[in-house]
Amino acid sequence: MIDMVAENSHRVVVVGSAGRDLALGATTLPEAGASASVSERMERLGGKGANIASGVRQLSPESHVTLIAALGADRAGEAVLEDAHELGIDTASVARRGATSLFLDLVTGAGERRIFEHVPPEADVREEDLRRAAPVLEAARVVVLQLRQPAAVLLRAAQLAPNARIVLDGAVEGGADGAYGAPLLAHAHVVRANADEAEALTGRTIASTDDAQRAAEELLRRGPSVVALSVSGAGDLVAWEGGSQFFPFGDAPVVDRTGAGDAFVAGLVTGLIRDESARDLGRRASEAASTAVQQFGGFTRFTHE
Amino acid sequence: MIDMVAENSHRVVVVGSAGRDLALGATTLPEAGASASVSERMERLGGKGANIASGVRQLSPESHVTLIAALGADRAGEAVLEDAHELGIDTASVARRGATSLFLDLVTGAGERRIFEHVPPEADVREEDLRRAAPVLEAARVVVLQLRQPAAVLLRAAQLAPNARIVLDGAVEGGADGAYGAPLLAHAHVVRANADEAEALTGRTIASTDDAQRAAEELLRRGPSVVALSVSGAGDLVAWEGGSQFFPFGDAPVVDRTGAGDAFVAGLVTGLIRDESARDLGRRASEAASTAVQQFGGFTRFTHE
Repeated sequence: MIDMVAENSHRVVVVGSAGRDLALGATTLPEAGASASVSERMERLGGKGANIASGVRQLSPESHVTLIAALGADRAGEAVLEDAHELGIDTASVARRGATSLFLDLVTGAGERRIFEHVPPEADVREEDLRRAAPVLEAARVVVLQLRQPAAVLLRAAQLAPNARIVLDGAVEGGADGAYGAPLLAHAHVVRANADEAEALTGRTIASTDDAQRAAEELLRRGPSVVALSVSGAGDLVAWEGGSQFFPFGDAPVVDRTGAGDAFVAGLVTGLIRDESARDLGRRASEAASTAVQQFGGFTRFTHE
Repeated sequence: MIDMVAENSHRVVVVGSAGRDLALGATTLPEAGASASVSERMERLGGKGANIASGVRQLSPESHVTLIAALGADRAGEAVLEDAHELGIDTASVARRGATSLFLDLVTGAGERRIFEHVPPEADVREEDLRRAAPVLEAARVVVLQLRQPAAVLLRAAQLAPNARIVLDGAVEGGADGAYGAPLLAHAHVVRANADEAEALTGRTIASTDDAQRAAEELLRRGPSVVALSVSGAGDLVAWEGGSQFFPFGDAPVVDRTGAGDAFVAGLVTGLIRDESARDLGRRASEAASTAVQQFGGFTRFTHE
């Protein structure tokens, strides 16, 4: 019985996108009509949901991570499913239909990147996908809801996971005051948003640490215990009831910022699994994001832990 | 015996690149740091050699087309090999090693495209690949040498094909006067080059039809019977001993110029199989290229013939 509880405490579910990540690096962006030679190429499992799941699996080898996502019924889907298995992600709740999403991360020159996303409608998580995964959600202790998925489906996932601490990543459709904002924030234990997402959530412009502090306080009043907001070009503010800490971005050269947000969330989840304080969650998340920006492509290899 | 000759007259060999073509269409090129949604995506067999082979197969269903190329020993290689089989391309001479080349055709807005090429060193055709294909080259009546491959290998291919009319596509390493330029041009029946390639070949700037005419005359003196040079933004000049004709680009809106040169060569080859005059070759090639620019991606679907 004690073993059972111990095992359950490591049960994580991530609801979010999965697909194929194609990262291409060239020295410059060619002019229109011209061509460039690609010096670096990486192709593997990607998408925000899958990136978070693979980050947690690496940062917490003791975790059991179930990904709820939809991959295509195609070759690309097969290939990235193999990557997920290699990382030890539980893919029993991954639906297969349509074409696999493609995320192109085009890096031209030092850290200059552009993302091209091809996400077919079938790639969104559906309520029927949750129904199949209901026992897994019921047993979960941490559930990450990546907010690019349909809000109605995410809210249903939160309702199906009464034993979990819910992590929201992104901006809720319609903002904090919309039809889904209030109930999702009420379910949330942690809210994570970058500057744009925090603006979409709160309607406040986040240009400084002070702006982030005010937005975080506003979000804390709506339910969550921890709010982590990033300030573009500066760092991440992590706030909790009665306190906050700012984690400035590191000095290490940025190779590719893609995947940094996903790594940040994976760090938060790892701290939650280990019942750490909000300050420690923030430190762990900030370190994970720093590891990510020093690597090419959306996937991050975490060597420590 | 007569049947045998008739069949041989349709034997075409293409030596050139093959790989995976990924065409992505978005309405605009995002700013650095931003992302764009992809509205159109096509992924299939590509590369100049493969495009020419698939064009000939479609324009001349009676042809037997052998592709000499190298694909990766990977999933992507399997996938594009299936495409080749569906087009009826003979792939018995396609080597498999390393990783499959990737050609990204990024189309942002009306006809504005950028190409990103990832071509691993293993993707170049090698002399050992020709050795295996020697009987096929011996029997060939038309051999296309795509000049992005190593010149020494291409020259060897020409020597192994004494019964073939040789089509050179592109610019020879080192130009017309280089170590490979003279012997390759001496072997050539047709030379096809775009404006940049014609400049690399002849050292002349090709800015007008007159420039193209002078460059073509110079190339004709070095061996080939037909020279086809394009003039950027204007059209294609096709020249032969004692005559020439200029084929202006059509008025149809350009969707994506990628693959137009390959389609042009496929048109030339089709005319050669049918023993047409130089003028008719040019007309056929120009029409094929016009079909190509009206389609998204490097692959061209030819509905006529």
